[in-house]
Amino acid sequence: MTMLLSNEDIAAILTMPDCLDAMEIAYKELGTAHGVNGVRSEILTATARDDALYSLLTMDGVIPKFGIGAVRINSDILTWPKSDAGLRRVKVPAAPNQRYVGLVLLFSTETGEPLAIYPDGEVQRMRVGATCGLAAKYMARADASEAAIIGSGHQASGQAMAICAVRPIKRLRCYSPNPASRAAFAEEMRHLLKIETVAAASLSEAVDGADVVMCATNSMQPVLPAELLAPGMHVSSLKRLELDASAVGRADVVVTHIRKAISHILRGEGADLAKDTEHQKAALSSALKQDSLPELSELLLGRTPGRRSPADISMFLNYSGLGYQFAATGYAIYKKAQETGIGRRIDTDWLTSALPS
Amino acid sequence: MTMLLSNEDIAAILTMPDCLDAMEIAYKELGTAHGVNGVRSEILTATARDDALYSLLTMDGVIPKFGIGAVRINSDILTWPKSDAGLRRVKVPAAPNQRYVGLVLLFSTETGEPLAIYPDGEVQRMRVGATCGLAAKYMARADASEAAIIGSGHQASGQAMAICAVRPIKRLRCYSPNPASRAAFAEEMRHLLKIETVAAASLSEAVDGADVVMCATNSMQPVLPAELLAPGMHVSSLKRLELDASAVGRADVVVTHIRKAISHILRGEGADLAKDTEHQKAALSSALKQDSLPELSELLLGRTPGRRSPADISMFLNYSGLGYQFAATGYAIYKKAQETGIGRRIDTDWLTSALPS
Repeated sequence: MTMLLSNEDIAAILTMPDCLDAMEIAYKELGTAHGVNGVRSEILTATARDDALYSLLTMDGVIPKFGIGAVRINSDILTWPKSDAGLRRVKVPAAPNQRYVGLVLLFSTETGEPLAIYPDGEVQRMRVGATCGLAAKYMARADASEAAIIGSGHQASGQAMAICAVRPIKRLRCYSPNPASRAAFAEEMRHLLKIETVAAASLSEAVDGADVVMCATNSMQPVLPAELLAPGMHVSSLKRLELDASAVGRADVVVTHIRKAISHILRGEGADLAKDTEHQKAALSSALKQDSLPELSELLLGRTPGRRSPADISMFLNYSGLGYQFAATGYAIYKKAQETGIGRRIDTDWLTSALPS
Repeated sequence: MTMLLSNEDIAAILTMPDCLDAMEIAYKELGTAHGVNGVRSEILTATARDDALYSLLTMDGVIPKFGIGAVRINSDILTWPKSDAGLRRVKVPAAPNQRYVGLVLLFSTETGEPLAIYPDGEVQRMRVGATCGLAAKYMARADASEAAIIGSGHQASGQAMAICAVRPIKRLRCYSPNPASRAAFAEEMRHLLKIETVAAASLSEAVDGADVVMCATNSMQPVLPAELLAPGMHVSSLKRLELDASAVGRADVVVTHIRKAISHILRGEGADLAKDTEHQKAALSSALKQDSLPELSELLLGRTPGRRSPADISMFLNYSGLGYQFAATGYAIYKKAQETGIGRRIDTDWLTSALPS
């Protein structure tokens, strides 16, 4: 039988600690070339709406140690509405019942069979959160207890879950420019994580005295100025434009998620930024620098240090998603779904063939 | 609702003429850059068996004119048993009930939604057959009535179906080295295509006097020597090693499917041939030459001639599959499945998400 899981199913079974455990093993496998990340494909074409484009994105990865291969597919209607911060890339929920289309398919490396199919929504924040969480586990001070989250969206919650799973966080400082958003986010995190949270009135109030600062915004402007970084801090970022060169320059140790930045920026983010040459220049320059940095798998394998002293400023740049991450989270999801029996099942024969292809 | 179709469903609804019509429009769209072929991803890793590897292959393409994007995924256990002709790449039907895993997913470019999921087995010979059929439609003599098929497998039948759909074929000459195989194939084609077929006792008996010769073998040795080519003949080939340089050199007009040969040979076929440097050298040299040839979309758009005179020898090299072909055949399949109501249906909500990703 092949599993069909919903976001709700996944939310019910996938914990951040399980996700972190799977990702930690997975990145070590990647660093020793036992696990393999595939080639990303991004297609943009016309769609029916004049103000939108159709985007078909695929990425994949295989982790033989887990017996899992994963393909992630996004089929989106994209628009670029103007906002105060410039053009913003917005997905339109154009599928029936105003829904989005992002799918993960898991396959067995032992039999080839399709093991599970599920939407990628819930996995998104977990895989990105766990990636930054792993970096923090290896880079942040062991006694880090104050964490600041910049941003209040879906990704911000994944970051909060991850840091609380790897460090003895006592208080979460929540900041985003909109007072209502940061208050709601602080409240949501208090319930979710059962720790003290505070909606900070300003960026500096959130960051000042924090041991860990995690940026998780959609900003196309720098959100964390260099002067707010303080000795002993660990900083992470999900978006190339969140940190400018001076902020990155302040760090004593910088690790990147994966050294594949240049082709990505040219083919992916580059397209989004095409109308804005200043942004594009900055992003390209940052990509070029990122391609000479040590990467997460090397950090986990001890080939590059996380920090050299408690006073170091450490930094993790998590700018490119990998299909590989869906194989790692897929393993954690599949195992729990097998144990709990959650979700729907369809006959695997419906998805396989007596004919070779 | 999202369709789940089986190979049997597809065999029941997909006709070669429909397939040819869709592919003809699709290649013109590709040639004018309205349709887009994606980037192929190929991963090879360890699997449980020592004598096998796990392979995860994805390819995709989008045809806005048809409103269709397609992703094709192969999840295979591969072995390379030794045969008289050297190492042969063989897929193991390791999925439950001894089945293979090749899937096509169709998406709407208007809404993003998943429209259909089906195995790729039946589509395989249709898309490859239609590609060579289209080339023959634009390259073979209009009065071609004698066709030779070299090979007797699944792909050979697709070639026979295609040539009969585009030319007034009166007789099909079937040849493969094994007498029983060629006899069975000739009999099968007689039933399928309702025309005279003959199992040729030798290669030269099959080819001598043929107007069209279609090679569809798994051979790693040349199968059609240059001296058998005759004026007015149209020749096509599915595998780089079927034709050697002297055979290709005999042709007056040569068109390739797509100019992407070099990266493919290095990453794909190259891996299969890695143990055999002579083969690899020949294949690489052929790939280099192929990358300077006109391609199918240019032929269909009239940018390059099919033949200049009835006495020309024309040749079509169909060496690299494209995800794009699955979008074209997918359109034909989806339309017919909608009209006939064939196949299973599952709730599209099971595959979509209220969360953006």
